[in-house]
Amino acid sequence: MTQGQAAFTIQNALVPTEQGYQTVDVQITDGWIRAIASELPPVGQVINASGQLLLPGFVNAHTHSSELWQRGMISPLPLELWLTELYELAPLEPEQIYLSALGTAVETLLSGGTTIVDHLVLIPGKEEETIAAAVRAYREIGIRAFVAPLIQDLSLEAGLPMRGESIAHPPYGRSTAETLALVERAVNQFHCPEAGIYIMVAPTGIQLCSDALFEGSMALSDRYQLCRHAHLLETKAQYDLAREKYSCSAVEHLDRLGFLNAQTSLAHCVWLDDADITLLAKTRATVVHNPLSNLRLGSGIAPLLKYRRAGINITFGCDGSASNDSQDLLEVIKIGTMLHNTTDFDYRHWITPREAVQMASLGGAIGLNLAGQIGTLEVGKIADLVLYDPTQHGVSPQSDPIGLLIWGRPIQPVRYLWVEGRPIVTEGQVTTIDLPWLKEEIRQHNLWNSERSPIPLNRTESRYRRVMGLGELA
Amino acid sequence: MTQGQAAFTIQNALVPTEQGYQTVDVQITDGWIRAIASELPPVGQVINASGQLLLPGFVNAHTHSSELWQRGMISPLPLELWLTELYELAPLEPEQIYLSALGTAVETLLSGGTTIVDHLVLIPGKEEETIAAAVRAYREIGIRAFVAPLIQDLSLEAGLPMRGESIAHPPYGRSTAETLALVERAVNQFHCPEAGIYIMVAPTGIQLCSDALFEGSMALSDRYQLCRHAHLLETKAQYDLAREKYSCSAVEHLDRLGFLNAQTSLAHCVWLDDADITLLAKTRATVVHNPLSNLRLGSGIAPLLKYRRAGINITFGCDGSASNDSQDLLEVIKIGTMLHNTTDFDYRHWITPREAVQMASLGGAIGLNLAGQIGTLEVGKIADLVLYDPTQHGVSPQSDPIGLLIWGRPIQPVRYLWVEGRPIVTEGQVTTIDLPWLKEEIRQHNLWNSERSPIPLNRTESRYRRVMGLGELA
Repeated sequence: MTQGQAAFTIQNALVPTEQGYQTVDVQITDGWIRAIASELPPVGQVINASGQLLLPGFVNAHTHSSELWQRGMISPLPLELWLTELYELAPLEPEQIYLSALGTAVETLLSGGTTIVDHLVLIPGKEEETIAAAVRAYREIGIRAFVAPLIQDLSLEAGLPMRGESIAHPPYGRSTAETLALVERAVNQFHCPEAGIYIMVAPTGIQLCSDALFEGSMALSDRYQLCRHAHLLETKAQYDLAREKYSCSAVEHLDRLGFLNAQTSLAHCVWLDDADITLLAKTRATVVHNPLSNLRLGSGIAPLLKYRRAGINITFGCDGSASNDSQDLLEVIKIGTMLHNTTDFDYRHWITPREAVQMASLGGAIGLNLAGQIGTLEVGKIADLVLYDPTQHGVSPQSDPIGLLIWGRPIQPVRYLWVEGRPIVTEGQVTTIDLPWLKEEIRQHNLWNSERSPIPLNRTESRYRRVMGLGELA
Repeated sequence: MTQGQAAFTIQNALVPTEQGYQTVDVQITDGWIRAIASELPPVGQVINASGQLLLPGFVNAHTHSSELWQRGMISPLPLELWLTELYELAPLEPEQIYLSALGTAVETLLSGGTTIVDHLVLIPGKEEETIAAAVRAYREIGIRAFVAPLIQDLSLEAGLPMRGESIAHPPYGRSTAETLALVERAVNQFHCPEAGIYIMVAPTGIQLCSDALFEGSMALSDRYQLCRHAHLLETKAQYDLAREKYSCSAVEHLDRLGFLNAQTSLAHCVWLDDADITLLAKTRATVVHNPLSNLRLGSGIAPLLKYRRAGINITFGCDGSASNDSQDLLEVIKIGTMLHNTTDFDYRHWITPREAVQMASLGGAIGLNLAGQIGTLEVGKIADLVLYDPTQHGVSPQSDPIGLLIWGRPIQPVRYLWVEGRPIVTEGQVTTIDLPWLKEEIRQHNLWNSERSPIPLNRTESRYRRVMGLGELA
């Protein structure tokens, strides 16, 4: 990672204590937090943080950056039909991948995220260029980035339960071995933790992956010490499909394969039953909660309070911009915590704003096997930090700073943001790239016209309605 | 209402058609929409709206402005316990009411709202000053405002079901007759539709109001042609209480009293059963959906898709800033539509962004008996209009403008906003008041300190846990 300033001091920052807040100075040298105390002697540049809230950076722990190109335009459909529209409108040029990775990083940064997990959809035939483009973007902008090439070895048609019908699936366009070789080349070329770039093994999920693909991914993960990532039980259809395919639950099957461990993070986890929850807790895998895409796609409400009670580590993800048409982590954290108050009358189980902050920061770090390095504000940790300006919290009295940040829908509240001590946001502006240029580059792509004809879903839609027990189309 | 510019023309605005969009000019004179067509001869000031989206204003159809003073700080608690903290921290000076009404109006305006319904909590002993302060704020800032003095005639303790316990409730501090007289004086003094200020009759709800208070309110409503407003079945406790009190549902009881008609809007409506829904549809009353406070207070998820299928008119409200710590209508509309996708597998029932826009504008107008005057972009209607700048929609390609507005979490996208043709927001800035002054005035109130001791809830909490069947406190 490009080295930050050799030394600087954040002065008089408000930081949370067990119950309340205290005002401290924080000394950072060579990217590390060296001291936290009242009235430290200033070293290097001094940043006056008086009345401002300093927190560890959040993790956007599951997104698909290239979906930025389909933001705001895909119809309200369940995942399995939504994918059909998604494929129709997918970007096909690596240069677009570079731009959408930058754009996704910008919105993550401006809502407090210092780390991103990009479950990266690969352009067919240009897989390595896709990965290279995303890595280039993240290195340039300076966000800590986990690039997780999204792999599968079954075609889309295999993703629905059969319900006794006999449907032949066309073979997937690339063999399992080729796919694993592709990931291994990406590891050799790009995996570089000291530069803040990490490759993950990331089979998309049980619905489109063979056991061989999971096993090959595990082997790579073990050989190169890579974190593991996958979608898990996002929809009811996937829940039913797993029972058909494995005669057991998806969690049980993945556990038997050995895919689930403390370095595995699993996006969605909407359709786990109580036995699955007990089992998942044992594996020490992390749940990545994507509440907004779960709502937009009608996938369901993940049993988050049950996960907490089972001791499962949880963090948040925005998911891609085509299924949550924003990459605002603060929105995800707000909704992703409040939503679950409706699932348990006992308010003593509800998630507080302080707990939400910890889930978004330390929870993210744990899931990425980085809890020893980032995720808390502690001496000896890497300075992935965010300073929030409370005057950006709309029209408000001075009330609880974390309450206002998490519940108050602040408008671009990030004043400073550092990744390994390097300033990425300064006075509310992303400084490492030319943001007006980026916005204009992306805006030049005009994806709508007033007469956009609906994409023909018919064949897929008929089958979907049949297997989900919905009525026939008129 | 202070007259707007005599005449102006919005040129080349993008407006929705049945399926897509078209570009039109809109001529406005003396506060009315006079013409909508391509290439109209410009009259008066010309506003270049090229590539920008013009929509009818939204309605923030249920809020409590004075809760701005408790934003971000009340613990995650269910309504009945949350109220205890709310009362502890309530503002007590009419000058505070003036400031918080301005602040609530600002956030409503900057998220596309041209009308606000303020279910106004009255300062004990200063009831008329409270109403006067809110009216003054709304007249100054120029938002169309329904001021609904929140009235009750039972004390807070009456708001929980008895479950066979015999609990004496202290009498409420003001008699039913005095309360109704107070509302009538407010009507005589402030109700002035031609100035954009409307008084509503607004008993808080069945949990704290006698039949006499409802009946007195209905009489005032009939005598002065006032809209009616109340909370309805926000919580499970209220559902149970109604059955105890009336031996029938709250909807049935209010219908028998005659309170429900086409000029009645009802906040929350979380706990209606199927029979209630059928009955409510017959009354033609409007449901005001407050999804965010329903989540924060764990009240539940309103059966919104059932309301739609029953033909009930629906619109949105932010609710007060102590139970949804933001007054951003776009946030409420996004969550308040997507949330319900999880309640029905058949995506053909899901709410589209275009339908959401109509609910927030025309739906609001219908509930306030103003559908003949506002709520759509039509010649002959009053110019309560909003022009959105799509370049504020974060980093995005040009995709569906309404999709981006509703789903994309834009950052202060309102470029112009007019109420009866009067410009209230110009180039993204509220022009009718001094916003930096307001923000500073409110920020001077420091409501937190690092050692804020938890408010003692014990007696109320024990009773609440008992009647709700939750476990004993440790």
